[in-house]
Amino acid sequence: MIKVSVMYPNSSDANFDIDYYCNTHMTMVAELLGDALKGSNVDRGLAGGAPGENAPFIAMGHLIFDSVESFQNAFAPHAEKIMSDIPNYTNTKPQVQISEIKV
Amino acid sequence: MIKVSVMYPNSSDANFDIDYYCNTHMTMVAELLGDALKGSNVDRGLAGGAPGENAPFIAMGHLIFDSVESFQNAFAPHAEKIMSDIPNYTNTKPQVQISEIKV
Repeated sequence: MIKVSVMYPNSSDANFDIDYYCNTHMTMVAELLGDALKGSNVDRGLAGGAPGENAPFIAMGHLIFDSVESFQNAFAPHAEKIMSDIPNYTNTKPQVQISEIKV
Repeated sequence: MIKVSVMYPNSSDANFDIDYYCNTHMTMVAELLGDALKGSNVDRGLAGGAPGENAPFIAMGHLIFDSVESFQNAFAPHAEKIMSDIPNYTNTKPQVQISEIKV
């Protein structure tokens, strides 16, 4: 299994509409990706590791697929629609990571 | 539920022993944290979001707890033992994020 993590960097002027992201954006993504999407999860940044430190990421979305190919085949036809929704909930530019789920 | 994400930045000279991390480090962490730890997961970075781009993080470990307080109470007594094991599997310095699991 692989995980696509979409990580929105935190900063003093970063904003993020977590309700829109969970209820509208991720719902749309799940519908568009269909059966290829094996699971998903949204994290809202609370804090960093040291006392008083901000979370490095204001929010993260994680999407699980059987393989990189499965993700690419499901995502490519809808990439433009999904990406163009980003300004509706944040002024940040996400970092994307594809990971192998080891454990 | 909250998630503690321990994210190891990638770079050209970063190294990471994923087998030691999964089989020795995370096993030790799970034993030390006991019942407070509600779940865990290890991701190995494969790629970034653009073609040919490296993963931002060479690896990530995610630990799930009922609350920030539960994490802090379980982690504090063992922090030094856990942190001192890091050089045994990587030359990188992790970024830590505490998140609320929204979905």
